[in-house]
Amino acid sequence: MTDISSGESLSPCPSQGALAHTFRLDEAVEVLTRTPDTLDALLHGLSAPWLQADEGPDTWSPFNVLGHLVHGERTDWIPRLRILLTHGEARPFDTFDRFAMLRDPEGNSPSELLTTFRELRRANIATLNSFSLTTSDLDRAGRHPELGTVTLGQLLATWVAHDLSHIGQIVRVMAKRYRQDVGPWRAYLPLLDR
Amino acid sequence: MTDISSGESLSPCPSQGALAHTFRLDEAVEVLTRTPDTLDALLHGLSAPWLQADEGPDTWSPFNVLGHLVHGERTDWIPRLRILLTHGEARPFDTFDRFAMLRDPEGNSPSELLTTFRELRRANIATLNSFSLTTSDLDRAGRHPELGTVTLGQLLATWVAHDLSHIGQIVRVMAKRYRQDVGPWRAYLPLLDR
Repeated sequence: MTDISSGESLSPCPSQGALAHTFRLDEAVEVLTRTPDTLDALLHGLSAPWLQADEGPDTWSPFNVLGHLVHGERTDWIPRLRILLTHGEARPFDTFDRFAMLRDPEGNSPSELLTTFRELRRANIATLNSFSLTTSDLDRAGRHPELGTVTLGQLLATWVAHDLSHIGQIVRVMAKRYRQDVGPWRAYLPLLDR
Repeated sequence: MTDISSGESLSPCPSQGALAHTFRLDEAVEVLTRTPDTLDALLHGLSAPWLQADEGPDTWSPFNVLGHLVHGERTDWIPRLRILLTHGEARPFDTFDRFAMLRDPEGNSPSELLTTFRELRRANIATLNSFSLTTSDLDRAGRHPELGTVTLGQLLATWVAHDLSHIGQIVRVMAKRYRQDVGPWRAYLPLLDR
Protein backbone atom coordinates (compact mmCIF):
# COMPACT_ATOMS: atom_id res chain seq x y z
CA MET A 1 0.00 0.00 0.00
CA THR A 2 0.96 3.59 -0.49
CA ASP A 3 2.39 5.21 2.57
CA ILE A 4 -0.10 7.93 3.41
CA SER A 5 2.59 10.32 4.52
CA SER A 6 3.92 10.35 0.96
CA GLY A 7 1.41 12.94 -0.16
CA GLU A 8 -1.16 10.84 -1.98
CA SER A 9 -4.66 12.05 -1.23
CA LEU A 10 -7.11 9.60 0.22
CA SER A 11 -9.90 11.34 -1.62
CA PRO A 12 -10.27 12.63 -5.14
CA CYS A 13 -12.68 15.26 -3.86
CA PRO A 14 -11.43 17.45 -1.01
CA SER A 15 -14.61 19.53 -0.85
CA GLN A 16 -15.58 20.04 2.75
CA GLY A 17 -19.28 19.67 2.15
CA ALA A 18 -18.93 16.33 0.43
CA LEU A 19 -19.23 13.04 2.22
CA ALA A 20 -15.84 12.02 0.88
CA HIS A 21 -13.10 11.74 3.47
CA THR A 22 -10.48 14.43 3.48
CA PHE A 23 -8.23 12.91 6.12
CA ARG A 24 -4.55 12.55 5.34
CA LEU A 25 -2.04 11.43 7.93
CA ASP A 26 0.60 13.98 6.95
CA GLU A 27 -1.86 16.85 7.30
CA ALA A 28 -3.13 15.51 10.61
CA VAL A 29 0.39 15.37 11.98
CA GLU A 30 0.94 18.99 10.93
CA VAL A 31 -1.78 20.03 13.35
CA LEU A 32 -0.94 17.58 16.13
CA THR A 33 2.66 18.83 16.06
CA ARG A 34 1.62 22.47 16.35
CA THR A 35 -0.75 22.20 19.30
CA PRO A 36 1.89 22.46 22.06
CA ASP A 37 3.30 25.63 20.47
CA THR A 38 -0.18 27.08 20.04
CA LEU A 39 -1.08 26.45 23.68
CA ASP A 40 2.24 27.88 24.82
CA ALA A 41 1.80 31.03 22.75
CA LEU A 42 -1.74 31.51 24.00
CA LEU A 43 -1.34 30.56 27.66
CA HIS A 44 2.25 30.57 28.89
CA GLY A 45 2.70 33.27 31.51
CA LEU A 46 -0.88 34.43 31.21
CA SER A 47 -2.31 35.83 34.44
CA ALA A 48 -4.62 33.82 36.67
CA PRO A 49 -7.87 35.63 35.79
CA TRP A 50 -7.53 34.35 32.22
CA LEU A 51 -6.33 30.85 33.14
CA GLN A 52 -8.96 30.30 35.80
CA ALA A 53 -11.93 31.83 34.02
CA ASP A 54 -14.79 29.47 33.25
CA GLU A 55 -18.29 29.59 31.82
CA GLY A 56 -20.12 28.93 35.06
CA PRO A 57 -20.64 25.95 37.38
CA ASP A 58 -19.37 22.62 36.03
CA THR A 59 -17.55 24.20 33.12
CA TRP A 60 -13.85 24.14 32.44
CA SER A 61 -11.21 26.82 32.70
CA PRO A 62 -8.23 26.98 30.33
CA PHE A 63 -6.25 25.40 33.19
CA ASN A 64 -8.73 22.50 33.35
CA VAL A 65 -8.50 22.03 29.58
CA LEU A 66 -4.71 21.75 29.84
CA GLY A 67 -5.10 19.01 32.43
CA HIS A 68 -7.60 17.22 30.18
CA LEU A 69 -5.23 17.38 27.22
CA VAL A 70 -2.37 15.97 29.30
CA HIS A 71 -4.58 13.14 30.51
CA GLY A 72 -5.60 12.40 26.91
CA GLU A 73 -1.97 12.09 25.84
CA ARG A 74 -1.40 9.55 28.60
CA THR A 75 -4.52 7.43 28.34
CA ASP A 76 -6.53 8.14 25.21
CA TRP A 77 -5.09 8.47 21.73
CA ILE A 78 -1.99 6.31 21.51
CA PRO A 79 -3.19 3.70 24.02
CA ARG A 80 -6.39 3.28 21.97
CA LEU A 81 -4.40 3.11 18.77
CA ARG A 82 -2.32 0.30 20.28
CA ILE A 83 -5.43 -1.60 21.35
CA LEU A 84 -6.90 -1.25 17.87
CA LEU A 85 -3.71 -2.38 16.15
CA THR A 86 -3.28 -5.32 18.49
CA HIS A 87 -6.82 -6.53 19.08
CA GLY A 88 -8.98 -5.00 16.36
CA GLU A 89 -12.61 -5.09 17.40
CA ALA A 90 -12.07 -7.98 19.80
CA ARG A 91 -11.17 -5.77 22.72
CA PRO A 92 -12.92 -2.44 23.33
CA PHE A 93 -10.91 0.64 24.23
CA ASP A 94 -10.62 1.50 27.88
CA THR A 95 -13.09 4.17 28.92
CA PHE A 96 -11.58 7.63 28.88
CA ASP A 97 -12.13 9.63 32.06
CA ARG A 98 -13.02 13.10 30.88
CA PHE A 99 -12.92 14.49 34.39
CA ALA A 100 -9.72 12.93 35.72
CA MET A 101 -7.92 16.27 35.74
CA LEU A 102 -10.55 17.83 37.98
CA ARG A 103 -9.75 15.32 40.73
CA ASP A 104 -6.04 15.00 40.23
CA PRO A 105 -4.55 17.92 38.34
CA GLU A 106 -1.16 16.93 37.02
CA GLY A 107 1.65 19.33 37.73
CA ASN A 108 1.52 22.25 40.04
CA SER A 109 1.21 25.08 37.57
CA PRO A 110 -0.06 25.87 34.10
CA SER A 111 3.56 26.15 33.04
CA GLU A 112 4.26 22.59 34.18
CA LEU A 113 1.16 21.29 32.41
CA LEU A 114 2.27 23.00 29.20
CA THR A 115 5.71 21.38 29.47
CA THR A 116 4.26 17.97 30.27
CA PHE A 117 1.84 18.21 27.36
CA ARG A 118 4.67 19.18 24.99
CA GLU A 119 6.80 16.20 26.07
CA LEU A 120 3.94 13.70 25.90
CA ARG A 121 2.79 14.96 22.51
CA ARG A 122 6.30 14.76 21.09
CA ALA A 123 6.64 11.17 22.28
CA ASN A 124 3.19 10.25 21.01
CA ILE A 125 3.87 11.63 17.53
CA ALA A 126 7.13 9.66 17.49
CA THR A 127 5.15 6.56 18.42
CA LEU A 128 2.57 7.30 15.73
CA ASN A 129 5.32 7.65 13.13
CA SER A 130 6.89 4.40 14.31
CA PHE A 131 3.75 2.52 13.25
CA SER A 132 4.41 3.46 9.58
CA LEU A 133 0.71 3.43 8.87
CA THR A 134 -0.55 3.02 5.33
CA THR A 135 -3.79 4.14 3.71
CA SER A 136 -5.23 0.69 4.16
CA ASP A 137 -4.52 0.81 7.88
CA LEU A 138 -6.93 3.73 8.16
CA ASP A 139 -9.81 1.34 7.60
CA ARG A 140 -8.80 -1.06 10.35
CA ALA A 141 -11.54 -1.35 12.91
CA GLY A 142 -11.59 -1.10 16.66
CA ARG A 143 -14.30 -0.97 19.25
CA HIS A 144 -15.25 2.10 21.24
CA PRO A 145 -16.94 1.29 24.57
CA GLU A 146 -19.91 3.53 23.75
CA LEU A 147 -19.77 4.29 20.03
CA GLY A 148 -19.17 0.73 18.82
CA THR A 149 -17.13 0.08 15.70
CA VAL A 150 -14.74 2.85 14.76
CA THR A 151 -11.80 2.96 12.39
CA LEU A 152 -8.19 3.89 12.91
CA GLY A 153 -8.64 6.83 10.54
CA GLN A 154 -11.60 8.07 12.59
CA LEU A 155 -9.54 7.84 15.76
CA LEU A 156 -6.74 9.92 14.25
CA ALA A 157 -9.14 12.49 12.75
CA THR A 158 -10.76 12.78 16.17
CA TRP A 159 -7.40 13.39 17.82
CA VAL A 160 -6.92 16.41 15.52
CA ALA A 161 -10.48 17.70 15.85
CA HIS A 162 -10.23 17.27 19.63
CA ASP A 163 -7.12 19.49 19.76
CA LEU A 164 -8.79 22.16 17.67
CA SER A 165 -12.02 21.95 19.66
CA HIS A 166 -10.22 22.53 22.92
CA ILE A 167 -8.23 25.46 21.54
CA GLY A 168 -11.60 26.83 20.46
CA GLN A 169 -12.97 26.22 23.95
CA ILE A 170 -10.06 28.05 25.57
CA VAL A 171 -10.46 31.18 23.45
CA ARG A 172 -14.24 31.10 23.91
CA VAL A 173 -13.91 30.95 27.70
CA MET A 174 -11.40 33.78 27.61
CA ALA A 175 -13.48 35.94 25.29
CA LYS A 176 -16.53 35.53 27.51
CA ARG A 177 -14.75 37.36 30.31
CA TYR A 178 -15.47 40.50 28.28
CA ARG A 179 -19.05 39.68 27.38
CA GLN A 180 -20.29 42.73 29.28
CA ASP A 181 -17.23 44.85 28.74
CA VAL A 182 -17.58 45.04 24.96
CA GLY A 183 -20.89 46.89 25.35
CA PRO A 184 -22.89 47.16 22.12
CA TRP A 185 -20.17 45.36 20.12
CA ARG A 186 -21.52 42.14 21.64
CA ALA A 187 -23.94 42.01 18.71
CA TYR A 188 -20.95 41.52 16.38
CA LEU A 189 -19.24 38.87 18.50
CA PRO A 190 -21.40 35.74 18.51
CA LEU A 191 -18.71 33.72 20.28
CA LEU A 192 -19.51 35.64 23.47
CA ASP A 193 -22.98 34.08 23.57
CA ARG A 194 -22.11 30.53 22.62
CA MET B 1 -6.35 58.77 38.51
CA THR B 2 -4.80 55.42 39.16
CA ASP B 3 -2.84 54.07 36.25
CA ILE B 4 -4.77 50.94 35.25
CA SER B 5 -1.65 49.07 34.32
CA SER B 6 -0.57 49.22 37.96
CA GLY B 7 -2.64 46.22 38.92
CA GLU B 8 -5.63 47.82 40.60
CA SER B 9 -8.83 46.07 39.63
CA LEU B 10 -11.55 48.09 37.97
CA SER B 11 -14.14 45.93 39.59
CA PRO B 12 -14.55 44.57 43.10
CA CYS B 13 -16.41 41.58 41.65
CA PRO B 14 -14.64 39.65 38.91
CA SER B 15 -17.42 37.08 38.58
CA GLN B 16 -18.03 36.38 34.92
CA GLY B 17 -21.77 36.16 35.23
CA ALA B 18 -22.10 39.50 36.96
CA LEU B 19 -22.84 42.70 35.14
CA ALA B 20 -19.77 44.28 36.71
CA HIS B 21 -16.96 45.01 34.30
CA THR B 22 -13.95 42.78 34.47
CA PHE B 23 -11.83 44.68 31.98
CA ARG B 24 -8.31 45.67 32.97
CA LEU B 25 -5.88 47.21 30.54
CA ASP B 26 -2.90 45.16 31.72
CA GLU B 27 -4.82 41.89 31.23
CA ALA B 28 -6.08 43.02 27.84
CA VAL B 29 -2.55 43.77 26.70
CA GLU B 30 -1.47 40.28 27.81
CA VAL B 31 -3.81 38.80 25.22
CA LEU B 32 -3.21 41.37 22.48
CA THR B 33 0.53 40.76 22.80
CA ARG B 34 0.15 37.00 22.47
CA THR B 35 -2.01 36.87 19.36
CA PRO B 36 0.81 37.08 16.78
CA ASP B 37 2.62 34.19 18.48
CA THR B 38 -0.57 32.16 18.68
CA LEU B 39 -1.33 32.64 15.00
CA ASP B 40 2.26 31.81 14.08
CA ALA B 41 2.22 28.63 16.14
CA LEU B 42 -1.09 27.55 14.66
CA LEU B 43 -0.63 28.56 11.03
CA HIS B 44 2.99 29.18 10.05
CA GLY B 45 4.07 26.61 7.48
CA LEU B 46 0.72 24.86 7.53
CA SER B 47 -0.23 23.27 4.22
CA ALA B 48 -2.71 24.86 1.84
CA PRO B 49 -5.65 22.52 2.52
CA TRP B 50 -5.76 23.82 6.09
CA LEU B 51 -5.13 27.47 5.25
CA GLN B 52 -7.63 27.58 2.41
CA ALA B 53 -10.41 25.56 4.00
CA ASP B 54 -13.67 27.39 4.56
CA GLU B 55 -17.18 26.65 5.78
CA GLY B 56 -18.89 27.02 2.42
CA PRO B 57 -19.77 29.88 0.05
CA ASP B 58 -19.16 33.36 1.46
CA THR B 59 -17.29 32.08 4.50
CA TRP B 60 -13.70 32.79 5.40
CA SER B 61 -10.64 30.60 5.33
CA PRO B 62 -7.84 30.94 7.89
CA PHE B 63 -5.98 32.86 5.16
CA ASN B 64 -8.90 35.29 4.82
CA VAL B 65 -9.00 35.76 8.59
CA LEU B 66 -5.31 36.69 8.59
CA GLY B 67 -5.99 39.35 5.96
CA HIS B 68 -8.90 40.66 8.02
CA LEU B 69 -6.74 40.90 11.14
CA VAL B 70 -4.03 42.79 9.24
CA HIS B 71 -6.62 45.20 7.88
CA GLY B 72 -7.97 45.73 11.39
CA GLU B 73 -4.54 46.65 12.70
CA ARG B 74 -4.23 49.29 9.97
CA THR B 75 -7.68 50.82 10.00
CA ASP B 76 -9.75 49.76 13.01
CA TRP B 77 -8.48 49.68 16.58
CA ILE B 78 -5.82 52.35 16.98
CA PRO B 79 -7.30 54.72 14.37
CA ARG B 80 -10.64 54.55 16.21
CA LEU B 81 -8.92 55.06 19.53
CA ARG B 82 -7.26 58.19 18.17
CA ILE B 83 -10.58 59.55 16.86
CA LEU B 84 -12.20 58.92 20.23
CA LEU B 85 -9.37 60.57 22.16
CA THR B 86 -9.29 63.57 19.83
CA HIS B 87 -12.94 64.13 19.00
CA GLY B 88 -14.97 62.27 21.59
CA GLU B 89 -18.49 61.73 20.29
CA ALA B 90 -18.30 64.69 17.92
CA ARG B 91 -16.84 62.67 15.08
CA PRO B 92 -17.96 59.09 14.39
CA PHE B 93 -15.40 56.41 13.64
CA ASP B 94 -14.72 55.63 10.02
CA THR B 95 -16.64 52.59 8.83
CA PHE B 96 -14.54 49.43 9.00
CA ASP B 97 -14.53 47.41 5.80
CA ARG B 98 -14.89 43.82 6.95
CA PHE B 99 -14.34 42.48 3.45
CA ALA B 100 -11.37 44.57 2.32
CA MET B 101 -9.02 41.61 2.46
CA LEU B 102 -11.19 39.62 0.05
CA ARG B 103 -10.65 42.24 -2.65
CA ASP B 104 -7.09 43.16 -1.91
CA PRO B 105 -5.25 40.53 0.11
CA GLU B 106 -2.16 42.09 1.61
CA GLY B 107 1.04 40.23 1.09
CA ASN B 108 1.57 37.32 -1.19
CA SER B 109 1.58 34.48 1.27
CA PRO B 110 0.24 33.45 4.66
CA SER B 111 3.78 33.80 5.96
CA GLU B 112 3.94 37.44 4.85
CA LEU B 113 0.56 38.17 6.40
CA LEU B 114 1.74 36.67 9.68
CA THR B 115 4.85 38.85 9.64
CA THR B 116 2.88 41.97 8.73
CA PHE B 117 0.37 41.29 11.46
CA ARG B 118 3.15 40.83 14.02
CA GLU B 119 4.81 44.12 13.07
CA LEU B 120 1.56 46.09 13.03
CA ARG B 121 0.42 44.65 16.34
CA ARG B 122 3.73 45.42 17.99
CA ALA B 123 3.55 49.03 16.80
CA ASN B 124 -0.10 49.32 17.85
CA ILE B 125 0.58 48.08 21.36
CA ALA B 126 3.44 50.57 21.62
CA THR B 127 1.03 53.29 20.53
CA LEU B 128 -1.55 52.12 23.04
CA ASN B 129 1.05 52.22 25.83
CA SER B 130 2.11 55.70 24.74
CA PHE B 131 -1.37 57.00 25.57
CA SER B 132 -0.80 56.18 29.29
CA LEU B 133 -4.50 55.58 29.73
CA THR B 134 -6.03 55.75 33.19
CA THR B 135 -9.12 54.09 34.60
CA SER B 136 -11.12 57.26 34.04
CA ASP B 137 -10.15 57.26 30.37
CA LEU B 138 -12.00 53.96 29.96
CA ASP B 139 -15.27 55.83 30.32
CA ARG B 140 -14.51 58.37 27.62
CA ALA B 141 -17.11 58.20 24.88
CA GLY B 142 -16.85 57.96 21.13
CA ARG B 143 -19.35 57.40 18.37
CA HIS B 144 -19.60 54.20 16.35
CA PRO B 145 -21.19 54.74 12.91
CA GLU B 146 -23.77 52.01 13.54
CA LEU B 147 -23.75 51.27 17.27
CA GLY B 148 -23.85 54.87 18.49
CA THR B 149 -22.15 55.83 21.74
CA VAL B 150 -19.40 53.51 22.86
CA THR B 151 -16.64 53.91 25.40
CA LEU B 152 -12.90 53.61 25.13
CA GLY B 153 -13.00 50.63 27.49
CA GLN B 154 -15.55 48.91 25.27
CA LEU B 155 -13.35 49.50 22.23
CA LEU B 156 -10.35 47.91 23.95
CA ALA B 157 -12.36 44.97 25.29
CA THR B 158 -13.69 44.42 21.78
CA TRP B 159 -10.17 44.40 20.36
CA VAL B 160 -9.33 41.50 22.70
CA ALA B 161 -12.58 39.61 22.14
CA HIS B 162 -12.17 40.09 18.38
CA ASP B 163 -8.71 38.46 18.47
CA LEU B 164 -10.04 35.53 20.47
CA SER B 165 -13.13 35.19 18.28
CA HIS B 166 -11.04 34.94 15.13
CA ILE B 167 -8.67 32.40 16.66
CA GLY B 168 -11.82 30.46 17.51
CA GLN B 169 -13.05 30.84 13.95
CA ILE B 170 -9.76 29.54 12.53
CA VAL B 171 -9.76 26.39 14.65
CA ARG B 172 -13.46 25.81 13.92
CA VAL B 173 -12.91 26.04 10.17
CA MET B 174 -9.96 23.69 10.44
CA ALA B 175 -11.80 21.20 12.63
CA LYS B 176 -14.72 21.07 10.21
CA ARG B 177 -12.46 19.61 7.54
CA TYR B 178 -12.77 16.38 9.55
CA ARG B 179 -16.49 16.57 10.20
CA GLN B 180 -17.06 13.37 8.23
CA ASP B 181 -13.73 11.79 8.99
CA VAL B 182 -14.29 11.52 12.73
CA GLY B 183 -17.18 9.13 12.14
CA PRO B 184 -19.31 8.51 15.23
CA TRP B 185 -17.09 10.73 17.41
CA ARG B 186 -18.87 13.68 15.77
CA ALA B 187 -21.45 13.38 18.54
CA TYR B 188 -18.76 14.34 21.05
CA LEU B 189 -17.39 17.28 19.05
CA PRO B 190 -20.06 19.99 18.89
CA LEU B 191 -17.64 22.45 17.27
CA LEU B 192 -17.90 20.45 14.06
CA ASP B 193 -21.55 21.37 13.71
CA ARG B 194 -21.37 25.03 14.69
